Amino acid sequence: MSADTSGSGYVEAEYSRDSKYISDRITSDGSSRWPVEPGRYRLVIARACPWANRSVIVRRLLGLEDAISMGMCGPTHDERSWTFDLDPDGRDPVLGYERLQEAFLARDPEYSRGITVPAMVDVPSGAVVTNNFPQITLDLSTQWTAHHREGAPDLYPEHLRDEMDEVMERVYQEVNNGVYRCGFSGSQRAYDKAYDRLFTTLDWLSERLESQRFLMGGQITEADVRLFTTLARFDTVYHGHFKCNRQKLSEMPVLWAYARDLFQTPGFGDTIDFPQIKEHYYVVHADINPTQIIPKGPDTSGWLLPHDREQLGERPFGDGTPPGPPPPAEQVPADHGPGGIPHR
Amino acid sequence: MSADTSGSGYVEAEYSRDSKYISDRITSDGSSRWPVEPGRYRLVIARACPWANRSVIVRRLLGLEDAISMGMCGPTHDERSWTFDLDPDGRDPVLGYERLQEAFLARDPEYSRGITVPAMVDVPSGAVVTNNFPQITLDLSTQWTAHHREGAPDLYPEHLRDEMDEVMERVYQEVNNGVYRCGFSGSQRAYDKAYDRLFTTLDWLSERLESQRFLMGGQITEADVRLFTTLARFDTVYHGHFKCNRQKLSEMPVLWAYARDLFQTPGFGDTIDFPQIKEHYYVVHADINPTQIIPKGPDTSGWLLPHDREQLGERPFGDGTPPGPPPPAEQVPADHGPGGIPHR
Repeated sequence: MSADTSGSGYVEAEYSRDSKYISDRITSDGSSRWPVEPGRYRLVIARACPWANRSVIVRRLLGLEDAISMGMCGPTHDERSWTFDLDPDGRDPVLGYERLQEAFLARDPEYSRGITVPAMVDVPSGAVVTNNFPQITLDLSTQWTAHHREGAPDLYPEHLRDEMDEVMERVYQEVNNGVYRCGFSGSQRAYDKAYDRLFTTLDWLSERLESQRFLMGGQITEADVRLFTTLARFDTVYHGHFKCNRQKLSEMPVLWAYARDLFQTPGFGDTIDFPQIKEHYYVVHADINPTQIIPKGPDTSGWLLPHDREQLGERPFGDGTPPGPPPPAEQVPADHGPGGIPHR
Repeated sequence: MSADTSGSGYVEAEYSRDSKYISDRITSDGSSRWPVEPGRYRLVIARACPWANRSVIVRRLLGLEDAISMGMCGPTHDERSWTFDLDPDGRDPVLGYERLQEAFLARDPEYSRGITVPAMVDVPSGAVVTNNFPQITLDLSTQWTAHHREGAPDLYPEHLRDEMDEVMERVYQEVNNGVYRCGFSGSQRAYDKAYDRLFTTLDWLSERLESQRFLMGGQITEADVRLFTTLARFDTVYHGHFKCNRQKLSEMPVLWAYARDLFQTPGFGDTIDFPQIKEHYYVVHADINPTQIIPKGPDTSGWLLPHDREQLGERPFGDGTPPGPPPPAEQVPADHGPGGIPHR
């Protein structure tokens, strides 16, 4: 997320995340300065970042590719900003920026907090509207309905919201953020506590998912999206780099089958770029990986193995349908997917 | 092994091991200054160190506990020396030393190379006879025969030596030392090459061990001892800390069953102290683990699962027998073994 690598601060040796965001909302009813308007906004992400990954998946599941364009930062960044180094001339073709920081400064010339992805940018002014990641995805579900594809799922169903908010809060505190708490602990004691919290919740999730296909029942919701983005990075980076190593995800049978099920669902696995994920964590966090050497492993081919979770429910999209393939310009290179061995 | 943490030097970004040792031999025929003599020598080891672990296992298998006493250094050390910090007053009860360095200086007051374990020390003079680890174990087999227990195996059978020397050389270069080459690579390129070499050889070993119970056939030899000491540390440290992460050992079915088979054989698993192993690598190598935080994982309980390798051969000790349990003073605490969760 953050260009200071983790949005982190050390408080009494325990990691705590900087959670100050530009939190405007884009709304359908005109209640904010920022109305829903196809073609007006650009979602800036990095494939590496789990917080940005949420918005990439939700945009895919809802079929918002034509309504909201997407800019992609490279996997690494310096202390000041994510950059558009993947674009041919090092500039985002729509915004014309080299550094995402420019979009934050266009919004506030005095802006001094984290330069984070995902960031929703107003194209006409080139200014960030919001980088408040938990709200961005919910608003894609609830405010952009007029532009959803036919067959788009309801990722935030009204009758489930109370329970869903609770589940997502626990997943956020203990898992999404919990892996960072392990990796950036400032003491052995803080790490030990963080590890216990993480695996306690992973055990709880395993139990919950033993008898239901998805977190909220038989259908995919945003709660699954949020858990998935951490699980997709678990063996590749969190297990070794962040010392979340009681087991690999691939050694936790229920969670591993659940994660593979989602990975193999259009809109999930097709957003995952393993080499970019590894490069981000191992290069950017020189404080915990001073050599900045990127591990060649793990073997990721297992993501495509059968998961046998259909027996728990056969309608992952409810009355809807899965999305089609991603637009060609947004496809992850084949050798960056499961089992790929990209050259360096 | 070395008190400079790894006996390492960086040559063109590739790790190379300092292999200059005090290489006197203790012989049965009086051809060296150091005759075989029960009670005269003390084997100084550290549970953490894989090179020392070889000698601990061979001494156990041959039943030399009464003939050669054992001193034990703690898992960590400073730049100058391993220390006897596990002993009640911080001194080895037989040698009276606080630091293993004293035994090297007793041998050579100008000694300036690595202070390494295992070290065979002449008790009367308090001087190191040899720290040449590959020879120490072979000499336990070939020179100390008069003092072997009844039923001791022949760990270095004459008719197998040519092939065994070749296998052990490859295992040394590519596996024992190969994991260090991964962990201490000075560049991405050197690491990538080291990783490929390591896993190429692990694949070769898996193939070799698919149809035979041990490396040289149906009986345990020193070649197995040498491979075992690296496999015993693989998931616990090399997988994460040294980035040897294509798979965990527990994900390589043949090698994992082979390693469990040995682990469950008296003389092997009863020499393994997982917490000391972890503490050593993660604390001593601050250059690659600057936080010095020790991972709580992995779960080691799997080491005790059935291995089903008996079908490949039922006489691991040939005409001999397995050793009895270790002397009480040399037992690894129960909570330092598989599945143990020692307090810190």
